[in-house]
Amino acid sequence: MNIEAGGERGFASDNQASVHPEVLAALAAVNTGHQPAYGDDPVTARLAEVVRGHFGERAEVYPVFNGTGANVVALQALTQRWSAVVCPESAHINTDECGAAEKIAGIKLIPVPAPDGRLTPELVDRYATGFGNPQRAQPAVVSITQSTELGTVYPVAETAALAAAAHERGMSLHMDGARVANAAAALDLPLRALTTDAGVDVLSFGGTKNGLLLGEAVVVLNPDAVRGVGFLRKSSMQLASKMRYVSAQLLALLEGDLWLRNARHANAMARRLAGAAAGVPGVEITRPVEANAVFALIPPDAAERLRKRFAFYTWDERAGEVRWVCSFDTREEDVDAFAAALAAELG
Amino acid sequence: MNIEAGGERGFASDNQASVHPEVLAALAAVNTGHQPAYGDDPVTARLAEVVRGHFGERAEVYPVFNGTGANVVALQALTQRWSAVVCPESAHINTDECGAAEKIAGIKLIPVPAPDGRLTPELVDRYATGFGNPQRAQPAVVSITQSTELGTVYPVAETAALAAAAHERGMSLHMDGARVANAAAALDLPLRALTTDAGVDVLSFGGTKNGLLLGEAVVVLNPDAVRGVGFLRKSSMQLASKMRYVSAQLLALLEGDLWLRNARHANAMARRLAGAAAGVPGVEITRPVEANAVFALIPPDAAERLRKRFAFYTWDERAGEVRWVCSFDTREEDVDAFAAALAAELG
Amino acid sequence: MNIEAGGERGFASDNQASVHPEVLAALAAVNTGHQPAYGDDPVTARLAEVVRGHFGERAEVYPVFNGTGANVVALQALTQRWSAVVCPESAHINTDECGAAEKIAGIKLIPVPAPDGRLTPELVDRYATGFGNPQRAQPAVVSITQSTELGTVYPVAETAALAAAAHERGMSLHMDGARVANAAAALDLPLRALTTDAGVDVLSFGGTKNGLLLGEAVVVLNPDAVRGVGFLRKSSMQLASKMRYVSAQLLALLEGDLWLRNARHANAMARRLAGAAAGVPGVEITRPVEANAVFALIPPDAAERLRKRFAFYTWDERAGEVRWVCSFDTREEDVDAFAAALAAELG
Amino acid sequence: MNIEAGGERGFASDNQASVHPEVLAALAAVNTGHQPAYGDDPVTARLAEVVRGHFGERAEVYPVFNGTGANVVALQALTQRWSAVVCPESAHINTDECGAAEKIAGIKLIPVPAPDGRLTPELVDRYATGFGNPQRAQPAVVSITQSTELGTVYPVAETAALAAAAHERGMSLHMDGARVANAAAALDLPLRALTTDAGVDVLSFGGTKNGLLLGEAVVVLNPDAVRGVGFLRKSSMQLASKMRYVSAQLLALLEGDLWLRNARHANAMARRLAGAAAGVPGVEITRPVEANAVFALIPPDAAERLRKRFAFYTWDERAGEVRWVCSFDTREEDVDAFAAALAAELG
Repeated sequence: MNIEAGGERGFASDNQASVHPEVLAALAAVNTGHQPAYGDDPVTARLAEVVRGHFGERAEVYPVFNGTGANVVALQALTQRWSAVVCPESAHINTDECGAAEKIAGIKLIPVPAPDGRLTPELVDRYATGFGNPQRAQPAVVSITQSTELGTVYPVAETAALAAAAHERGMSLHMDGARVANAAAALDLPLRALTTDAGVDVLSFGGTKNGLLLGEAVVVLNPDAVRGVGFLRKSSMQLASKMRYVSAQLLALLEGDLWLRNARHANAMARRLAGAAAGVPGVEITRPVEANAVFALIPPDAAERLRKRFAFYTWDERAGEVRWVCSFDTREEDVDAFAAALAAELG
Repeated sequence: MNIEAGGERGFASDNQASVHPEVLAALAAVNTGHQPAYGDDPVTARLAEVVRGHFGERAEVYPVFNGTGANVVALQALTQRWSAVVCPESAHINTDECGAAEKIAGIKLIPVPAPDGRLTPELVDRYATGFGNPQRAQPAVVSITQSTELGTVYPVAETAALAAAAHERGMSLHMDGARVANAAAALDLPLRALTTDAGVDVLSFGGTKNGLLLGEAVVVLNPDAVRGVGFLRKSSMQLASKMRYVSAQLLALLEGDLWLRNARHANAMARRLAGAAAGVPGVEITRPVEANAVFALIPPDAAERLRKRFAFYTWDERAGEVRWVCSFDTREEDVDAFAAALAAELG
Repeated sequence: MNIEAGGERGFASDNQASVHPEVLAALAAVNTGHQPAYGDDPVTARLAEVVRGHFGERAEVYPVFNGTGANVVALQALTQRWSAVVCPESAHINTDECGAAEKIAGIKLIPVPAPDGRLTPELVDRYATGFGNPQRAQPAVVSITQSTELGTVYPVAETAALAAAAHERGMSLHMDGARVANAAAALDLPLRALTTDAGVDVLSFGGTKNGLLLGEAVVVLNPDAVRGVGFLRKSSMQLASKMRYVSAQLLALLEGDLWLRNARHANAMARRLAGAAAGVPGVEITRPVEANAVFALIPPDAAERLRKRFAFYTWDERAGEVRWVCSFDTREEDVDAFAAALAAELG
Repeated sequence: MNIEAGGERGFASDNQASVHPEVLAALAAVNTGHQPAYGDDPVTARLAEVVRGHFGERAEVYPVFNGTGANVVALQALTQRWSAVVCPESAHINTDECGAAEKIAGIKLIPVPAPDGRLTPELVDRYATGFGNPQRAQPAVVSITQSTELGTVYPVAETAALAAAAHERGMSLHMDGARVANAAAALDLPLRALTTDAGVDVLSFGGTKNGLLLGEAVVVLNPDAVRGVGFLRKSSMQLASKMRYVSAQLLALLEGDLWLRNARHANAMARRLAGAAAGVPGVEITRPVEANAVFALIPPDAAERLRKRFAFYTWDERAGEVRWVCSFDTREEDVDAFAAALAAELG
């Protein structure tokens, strides 16, 4: 194979990044002989142990392939056939999973307008209605994303308040943690503080956007809230036969502090980028930069030209808002080069 | 991490095998910088080219995570909401996917008793009925497995006859090719001869059981037979964001002859094992050994004791039939050690 | 409207029959003023009372539109998202509901060859397997039809044995009772004896084939076995807004003995027909005539000619087997005319 | 049975009304002898003819049981497995069908805030996005309700503009016509003018709320826009076996002008009620009264007391808004009595 040496490090998404060398090394390390398939292997057993260390003794880990898979398995495990899930309008499950929650799980999503991507107990109160009425899909889950799709972070108290609001109504709290490491880094707290201890019932733990080749996990924090996760993972086509190779990647993140180093770096790069961009006349940073994403208004023609050199997405066509995401492998020079190009473009 | 050095090479399944070193090397080779996500990367583009080389100019490749995923995406693309799929009772989609075809795709499976795991045009004629009758799920696909779950191989003429039987009825032919490489090796034919040229419409191409870490592909051979594969892959949670790392593995198999070397070796090891076992009194080989699996009757207590040293499955509890599967990484000494143990056990 | 006076009374199916005059009268009787919708009306309340009288104090009744609806709501209430249902190959849910169980409920059906349409504990033992194995859809329900699609009837002891076999495995017993009244009449037992008291968990109670315009009911005999019936009925599109008009029909059957009179008559007509036909040279009655259906082998060309005057279906094209079904409104002269024509045809 | 003579005629919903005597008479008229099941009967054939008279020569009619059934069959016929449907937030398919569209069809609903219950081309433009992007469920249908759940009516030009907006994007236009007769009466136009001629592709034609016992129909106006309606009706549990009795009811409405008489009367009663209520101090009519529903703000405690005598629903708890619906069988004296009670209550 003769693939050209590989792209610029752009700002399109943290899923365009490469794989951290320690993760590749972990794959090589487990590549010895045969192992039981489907998770009955020692690598996965070790992962379970490490996950309990991070999330508490009741935590159960189910490695899966991707974030959509983690979310849809989690939501199925938390719901009945007649359930609804309350989520922000901007939730990945609502906007970017090609309707998988509805299609695979038959779930009704109740999307809630939430300008900064965060739900509140008041919004839950307003949108989770119709309990007991057979005309209404029954609200069963509040689903939040941490850090959010809009680059914001729920403080622990807000998550805890949402958990309380959910539990009061007999609902569960699901956290889409595709970037939960970035949130933990931003809050400077252990993973457990913003999940288990805040009342989250099930976490979709993200690895791919934090340096893995691929690999996420459904982490059940409250086993009383779920049913049939193992069967759902398989029937939802998320059960890896050679699971040790997924588990090894997750272990590479979680056994030491790679998860945190990677996330801290990405967050720092986003702050650096936001800082530089904010100083460029004609650029308006539109949202708090709390994790690894920066949202900004820039003139569309400037965006067009910049995109020739640096990958990034337009987030909101109407508003002219763009999104820049930093990764574990974003370098200071990548940020500085982009900031310089931005300044030159708008200068 | 300190995982013990790794298991014996047993005969439980080719999905308990390790990853071929050339595949790990391919992962490292593409691990440079950022690349577009979701398949818009040069590695995946190169894979598409290579797949066309193997399967013909109309072939389209959609990398996915696992075999169940490949099958369910393929079947959805070939069916309507009211369709049925005719398959052998022993088909993986019927027995080992936790009902994913029914659950995810809403498909009715029509399982056909087929003692050696192979369908025939006569069986299709008998089981594909009720066309036009709204009380009946409409037969839309004939699904066969190559090589079969019972270790047998469809000669090209049989596949072609099934394709004709399907097409005459307005149905399509799907091939679950989790072990299609083993079939090609057994038949000593290029992949195209037993798929595209035999009239197969869509192939689930298997990589995981042939030396990958994980990775399969929906290979559309007849684009006129399918609808919406790209959307179905995503909504069925089978779209890898960092797809270059799945594509690179598939490329490692298909760009050269690794797919064939691996499959030939596994088949040869199965023949070696069958030959040795057949000579042991008290062992009855129950099925033709045409690919990489050996089925045999041995006394249950002997099986029980052997299993303490070598992993393998009982296939049919009632009959006392066991299954031994060989892999790309099964060594002659593994086979010989097992055969010796078998002889000692039954001697 | 000027529709011609209406067909011969043929033998195609009891769902081609008319509506019993007492049922039409019951509709007129409840047609006064407004009533709460969706079942909160006094007619439905009275039905609940009457159903408890027939089936025991724990029985709950959920009127629905049709038999497929009753079956699919019942099966959903008895299963999880990863469940399988063991049923005879000839079960209506398997052969004549256009895949609704799979499509609507995502259930895997495990069809069991059962020559006379009846399951046995041995067959359950053989086909309900894989408990706890995530690769397998988990067997959750045994579904039987009473009287069967082949005109046979389960004696109470056989039903009880199946209930025991199901319950031992943590499964439930569902009875498709589209013709349960015919079975009760044949066994000369109260409804409760062959359902609740025999260990059935949920019954699909059939009305349409026994003289209603339309109307069936999910009758929950063991409330501990189900979840969410009310929500499932609505989300499965089986909740009538003007429910009093469905309930009134079911009441017309069940408040007095209309259900039994109708069923007895239909059964008697089938016996009369079988008796007459058995005496015709060239006719072979192929199955025990235990309820209201007669199966017979007759020469295909004779069948073809007879069908010009009397509606009936060929059941098995290959075998040349036909089916004759009698209804509450089949008259002795209808049977005698048909028998005479049959004799003349084959004389 | 001894059900008490029947309720007051309240204002809770037109589905709490009785059955029009002409409809009951039509049932009796077709109750002669046997007829082919599943729609192959002369009553249904005649209905098809009459429907073509109303909706144009290409119109096809599929009788079903209820409105949710009509909507979900229609939407399935118009969509693929990866489709989204754009509808107003207040749409019955979004709020009152227990998630059936998502659960049964796997469709993603995109609910659009629309204060008066009506979509516009601008809203379609804003919410139907992501065409071709595999991360997004693909917008395939615009679904509107006529008359709307908020008692408003789309003028023909608005429907035509929505049809154009849908068709431009390769989407279809579905009309939930649970109360389409009320809309036609309000607009004083033939049914065809506001459906077929305005570009509607499929209509859910409502009968139950306009005087039937039960019975709706999927009316396909543009056969090129749909696939598999007959199979979808059966697999969605909406195929009546004794269909002549559903068809006869629809015929009773449509063969003469009963549909229009009933609708006009209900609309007139709503206007009478609105007129009377508007004159009561403390009552604020909140929406245009264009069909048979009146929305008003009244003090919650007054609502509570009035409800003891007259059935009606609170529409919006927060706002204190109530809804009063009139039916074909609402009498002037019912309206006047209610208006008097309202005045007395608030006087």
